[in-house]
Amino acid sequence: MPQENIALFTIFGGTGDLAKRKLYPSLFRLFRKGDLQEKFAVIGTARREWTNDYYRTIVKETLADLKPTEAELTSFTSHFYYQSHNVTDTEHYVTLEKLADSLDKKYHLQGNRLFYLAMAPNFFGTIIEHLKTENIVTENGFNRLIIEKPFGSDFQSASELNEQIRKVFAEEQIYRIDHYLGKEMVQNISAIRFGNTLFESMWNKDFIDNIQITFAEFLGVEERGGYYDKSGALKDMIQNHILQVVALLAMEPPTIFSETSIREEKVKALKAVRIYSEEEAEKNFTRGQYGPGVLEEQKFLPYRKEKNVAPHSQTETFVAGKFLIDNLRWNDVPFYVRTGKHLTEKGTRINIVFKSVATNIFRDPEEPLEQQKEIPANVLTIYIQPTEGFSLALNGKEIGQGFDLRPVKLDFRHSSETTGNSPEAYEKLILDCLNGDGTNFTHWDEVAQSWRIVDVIRAAWDKKEIDFPNYASGTMGPPSAFELLAQDGFEWVWQPDEWYREKGKLS
Amino acid sequence: MPQENIALFTIFGGTGDLAKRKLYPSLFRLFRKGDLQEKFAVIGTARREWTNDYYRTIVKETLADLKPTEAELTSFTSHFYYQSHNVTDTEHYVTLEKLADSLDKKYHLQGNRLFYLAMAPNFFGTIIEHLKTENIVTENGFNRLIIEKPFGSDFQSASELNEQIRKVFAEEQIYRIDHYLGKEMVQNISAIRFGNTLFESMWNKDFIDNIQITFAEFLGVEERGGYYDKSGALKDMIQNHILQVVALLAMEPPTIFSETSIREEKVKALKAVRIYSEEEAEKNFTRGQYGPGVLEEQKFLPYRKEKNVAPHSQTETFVAGKFLIDNLRWNDVPFYVRTGKHLTEKGTRINIVFKSVATNIFRDPEEPLEQQKEIPANVLTIYIQPTEGFSLALNGKEIGQGFDLRPVKLDFRHSSETTGNSPEAYEKLILDCLNGDGTNFTHWDEVAQSWRIVDVIRAAWDKKEIDFPNYASGTMGPPSAFELLAQDGFEWVWQPDEWYREKGKLS
Repeated sequence: MPQENIALFTIFGGTGDLAKRKLYPSLFRLFRKGDLQEKFAVIGTARREWTNDYYRTIVKETLADLKPTEAELTSFTSHFYYQSHNVTDTEHYVTLEKLADSLDKKYHLQGNRLFYLAMAPNFFGTIIEHLKTENIVTENGFNRLIIEKPFGSDFQSASELNEQIRKVFAEEQIYRIDHYLGKEMVQNISAIRFGNTLFESMWNKDFIDNIQITFAEFLGVEERGGYYDKSGALKDMIQNHILQVVALLAMEPPTIFSETSIREEKVKALKAVRIYSEEEAEKNFTRGQYGPGVLEEQKFLPYRKEKNVAPHSQTETFVAGKFLIDNLRWNDVPFYVRTGKHLTEKGTRINIVFKSVATNIFRDPEEPLEQQKEIPANVLTIYIQPTEGFSLALNGKEIGQGFDLRPVKLDFRHSSETTGNSPEAYEKLILDCLNGDGTNFTHWDEVAQSWRIVDVIRAAWDKKEIDFPNYASGTMGPPSAFELLAQDGFEWVWQPDEWYREKGKLS
Repeated sequence: MPQENIALFTIFGGTGDLAKRKLYPSLFRLFRKGDLQEKFAVIGTARREWTNDYYRTIVKETLADLKPTEAELTSFTSHFYYQSHNVTDTEHYVTLEKLADSLDKKYHLQGNRLFYLAMAPNFFGTIIEHLKTENIVTENGFNRLIIEKPFGSDFQSASELNEQIRKVFAEEQIYRIDHYLGKEMVQNISAIRFGNTLFESMWNKDFIDNIQITFAEFLGVEERGGYYDKSGALKDMIQNHILQVVALLAMEPPTIFSETSIREEKVKALKAVRIYSEEEAEKNFTRGQYGPGVLEEQKFLPYRKEKNVAPHSQTETFVAGKFLIDNLRWNDVPFYVRTGKHLTEKGTRINIVFKSVATNIFRDPEEPLEQQKEIPANVLTIYIQPTEGFSLALNGKEIGQGFDLRPVKLDFRHSSETTGNSPEAYEKLILDCLNGDGTNFTHWDEVAQSWRIVDVIRAAWDKKEIDFPNYASGTMGPPSAFELLAQDGFEWVWQPDEWYREKGKLS
């Protein structure tokens, strides 16, 4: 039986998309498993005027996929309360405080409070300030703040936001969500790295040639044009998710796998990521914006024709780049990253490309050494989504006479059965927060350093207009994304079939 | 189109089991592929009085599994000739020489001759001597000798045999067959080792804990009691097949994968295998003989009740032991070997057991360090038969909250389709011999050193009677085979389910 967790959740943005798609289903799963039992309550707040009953009906609707029984639904949603709320109106916080206190008494919540900011970032500061001044933050229980990205829009604004929050919450009370850190296979990175001699002992510049991180999306901006056009791929993906993955891959082994030591190591790793000059940023990072294209027989509009996007938008929907990590472990090992919308295929993957064996002893001794066939590199691939698992590309002997090598792929995919039962990222992260475990959240030092790394690239790009669009929907980005690796003598390991086909490499 | 090979095959033991089960089908496969076309002929010789026609009928019968057409059969067997032969009668060699010469002319064989000794070893010396004195060995083409095991029965007798052969054939003309060296996955050992950075760079005492080689047979001695009771598992399996596999696993990387450099490296490796004193042999090697038992609901007789086996036989049907290799690469890394008849399951496997990661960073920091759960070792398993392929046992993260590790197995098995089309060991070895490639045959220096290693163990054992039988048919050998590893703090990685069940480890 899991431990019963005791807390009042106050969800700002309780009528919003995130709450409906992720938070309510996650809370329900925790409830079903017994992680939440009787001693919890949820206040949903937002501008709209909803009744408790209507709110509960909406919450129920969000759970349809989980096939709850009527009894489960009634019992679960009886813990839900709605409070209409204007975040700038102090009076409203007074009402909220009263409701919170009464629920605390009713459900014996011991003053434990979890504030979830599931909304646009404009009002984060105001809300947090009022939580303090109106005494919604308690004295007797725990108070924890879960805050969604984006955390600022550059180092400056992030620092200001952080200072505001820190007036009310200590760093260890702040849970900055990066939902990728809740994903099974992102968490598996450390298990694979530190649980296997085969990888642990080779995890450095002596054995690794380069590391490739791809966050490819099949969809375009959809309904998010308004937000996205102000943000772009660099801030939306690289600054947070991708640099978090870089940190997990690059960090030194922690002494023990605890929140503190992992944070320490991740911060150290991010601080070792080279901060480019603007010239270097131009050279090592490249951007793209999708034009029209055809994907699986659907025709797609160019980005600039999407809803709420400026007709001459300079916003990038694609980024590829190379990070360098200036320490003894990673000196000169490129960490290539790329992310984009309307690419060939949806997929988040990490490829660890090991160095090839120093010499091909199976070569033809008659042929000049320079012309010997190089043996393909060993590659460890970690599949984060939609597939979850990992694989290892090795070489074996071609069956038959002689000693020709051929690539062999050893595969481990989580079965759909296990992944079906595996907790969703948000479920895991909310439970972590209830347990006071910040391992899978991002510390301010990480956020700060990530902005410092990314700000220079943004600054360099803002000085120069690009002739967008520069890649067709359904391709893997602009040619510059391939040249980036080619000039170092490498190529992307993961090249979806479609791209190959287009380049005439596949029939 | 493959290259046409030109040769006269003279098969001594042409009516025997090996010729019928392996040689004729292998020659037919080569014929079908075009490796043999018009310019070849086969002389089968043996004591019995057969006609060419009868011989051809027998040869045809051995090919039934390959589903030949009538035309193929006629065309193939038209190259076959039978010569009744008493190996000690000089006159008979004169007849043989005449037949050989006439076939050479008829088929334009350019004096190329391949002599295959597919018979009991008693007359190897006599036959070879007569090949020379009666001029059956030619001057104008190549002359090659394929010789089956056993090559002697100890170092002394092997040396004598070798001297006899060397009077007629140079070392490079002698192809000593060890049919395991023709097996796809034995040949794959080198491809896996030298074609993958992940293994090549870890193939030494710093990363490998121990290596385990199992040659398990499900069958008993069957019809071979007479031969086997004079030989035993040590001479029948360890001296040849198993020490060959040890040499392939242990050798230093050759500069190039050529016959000469591989032989050099294998000999060097075998010379580094510690030759025990008799006391050490007693300690590091253990033997067994099967008693009655039940396997898959069949009841089995004890070895001593088998046909042609002495009623108080001291012959071992099981051996387990530990080899140590005294060089910089393998210092203190045990190579455990075992082989036996009537074991739980048929299977030839190699397990490379890597060292566990130095410390478990996922341990509970509250618990004393000595009590931490050790992380299971990474294991590379090479499946030689009946399954062919390899697998890698790694660790991943248990799905869900927290960071518990769990074993994960990455598997690569040759599909039955590819293995069905893959050449049989004998086919590959005969073609190697036609091509003059001795890579997959054993050099005299290897044979000699293997006998030196094994002779001491035999000598130690011969001094002490054992209370046989000491293991039941259907188990994985006597308890001493498990204690051998347990006293070093290890255990056999491959423990077939049945054995687990018996020990109550599986329900």
